[in-house]
Parts: sequence; structure tokens; C-alpha cells
Amino acid sequence: MDHNLNDTIALLTRTPAALNSLLRDLPEMWTLRNEGDKTWSAFDIVGHLIHGERTDWMPRARIILQFGDTRPFDPFDRWAQERESQGKSLDQLLDEFARLRSENLDALRAMNLQPADFERHGRHPALGVVTLSELLATWVAHDLTHLHQISRVMAHQYREAVGPWGEYLGVMHCAGHSS
Amino acid sequence: MDHNLNDTIALLTRTPAALNSLLRDLPEMWTLRNEGDKTWSAFDIVGHLIHGERTDWMPRARIILQFGDTRPFDPFDRWAQERESQGKSLDQLLDEFARLRSENLDALRAMNLQPADFERHGRHPALGVVTLSELLATWVAHDLTHLHQISRVMAHQYREAVGPWGEYLGVMHCAGHSS
Repeated sequence: MDHNLNDTIALLTRTPAALNSLLRDLPEMWTLRNEGDKTWSAFDIVGHLIHGERTDWMPRARIILQFGDTRPFDPFDRWAQERESQGKSLDQLLDEFARLRSENLDALRAMNLQPADFERHGRHPALGVVTLSELLATWVAHDLTHLHQISRVMAHQYREAVGPWGEYLGVMHCAGHSS
Repeated sequence: MDHNLNDTIALLTRTPAALNSLLRDLPEMWTLRNEGDKTWSAFDIVGHLIHGERTDWMPRARIILQFGDTRPFDPFDRWAQERESQGKSLDQLLDEFARLRSENLDALRAMNLQPADFERHGRHPALGVVTLSELLATWVAHDLTHLHQISRVMAHQYREAVGPWGEYLGVMHCAGHSS
């Protein structure tokens, strides 16, 4: 197993606090602007992370433990936050993300997973057979892919302001790489 | 001017707290591992940010205000942290970064910059003429490029562990883009 539960929980625990420290009370030019049509702002990304806490990671872990690979995961709605974040402030979203993450990590610890459990199979609707270990590692990597994205979206707002330095700033040349 | 000093200071103020929330007491597999030969770990990156606080941003702002473009900036040593971080813990580096950033932002505010000051010219040893506005915007974007990098370096540690999900995770496909 390439995946260590303590390392995974250590990082999952810190993401809400890191986003809170970075984003709370920041001017809206940083948090509400995106990279153009059909792209996400930091506000949208926090909403997406909340939707993942509600419908993706722990629900899928429970499906694996209960049904194995006989019942595919429910597909994930990548645009749910457009609906669910409406009328909320970023402060509310940051609080909600922290609360849901904390509850989910409590539930994960309470599962008392044993080494053999990590190799149990589930079925992703598009990717096919995956393991519980891969699901938990992806939860972490998903946090990191969105921290990577938030950094890039915010840097994009200063793409003109940095002048010739843009050449040296890797984040200004990142295309996102998401499918 | 594409650059607003309040927006710039708001973000520069938050970076040390965000890195502290993300990295302090995190297992060393996240903070000390890099992406391979001649690449940086999160520990190395915090050391690099410290060196920037000491030798790059405010010293260059002072050169612009004092000498304009008649005196080029001193070149920046991208590997100084190899020497300067030796024997220190990540906790010490996080504290040092927070302290230096806070002192530098106090000094920046004390400059009481006026609109015309932002257009004053300096001379970058490789890029040629730049403005004070561009320097300050680059200070922010440099924070973001390294937050982007830290996310990527940490995600790299789980590149095998995520299994087939790697396909969907943009951060796993990021090559860094730095020159």
C-alpha cells in the first residue's frame, strides 16, 4: 500500500485551516474573480470542496465497505456549487467546509479501518475498479489540486501587473491540466 | 496601474499564516520530500521565501526609490536556502518567515507610497527596466507561484497512491513551468 492513513488524515485536517488563513476577509478581487468563461473563482472552489464532503469521499468509502464493486459510485456533480453556494458568503462557506471536514474525519476514524480494508474494491462509474486506499489518497490529492488551482486563479488576476516578471513565474504559465 | 497596494498587502499578509496552517507539524513525508534531483521540498520553499524577504522585495523597492534605474538590483540567489536553512526546523522557518514578512509590510506601509511612486523605474539585471508597481505585484505572484509549487510537490508524493484517479487530478500533470 502506497498510502498511509495517518499521513492522509494529517493533511486532510489542515486544508480547511489553510484555506481559512489564506482567503477569509481577503478583498473580493482575489476571491470572486476567475480565469474566464466557465472557470472557477476561489469562492466557487470552496463550494466544490463542500460538495465533495457531502457527496463524494465518505459516501464512496461507505459504498466500498458495504457493497464492494457490485454497486458503482454515484457520479459527482462538478457544478453543484453554482446552486448550493448561492446567497452564501465566503466566510459561511469556509465555516461549512471546516465543519463538514471535521465531521467526516471523525467518521473516518470511527471506521477503525484495518490493513486489509484498504485493498477492498469499489467501482468508479468511469474509471472502473478502484481501491479504498486509492479513494482516500485521492481525497488528499483533490485538496491539493484545488489549492494548486486557487493559487493559479489568484495569480491570474495579476498577470498584467507583474510586467516582464511573468516570464519567471511558473504559476502564470500553468494551464490547469484538468480534463 | 494594474496594481492596487491594499489588495497586494492583503494577500502578502496572509501567506505566512496560510503556510503555517498547512505545514506546521505535518508528517515529514509531506514537508521534506521533493519531486526528484535538484527540486525543492516544502521545507526548501519556505527557506526560499525567507531569503526573498531578506534580499529581494524590500531591498529592491529601496533601490528603486533611491537610485531609480541607474543601479541594477543585486541578483537573487535561488539556492541560498540550502545554506541558510541548515540545522533549522520547519517550525523555526515558518516563524522566521512570518516575522520577516510582518516587518517588511510595516516598512512598506511606512514608505507612504504615492500614486506617482508606483511608476518609478528600476533596473532588473536580466529583465531590464521594471516599475515599482511591477515589483510589488510580483512579490504577491511569487507567493502564489510557491503555494502552487508546494501543492504540486506534496501531491507528487501520492502520484502512485491515487491509482486511476491521477488522470483527473490536474496537479499531477503540472510540470512546474518555471524557467
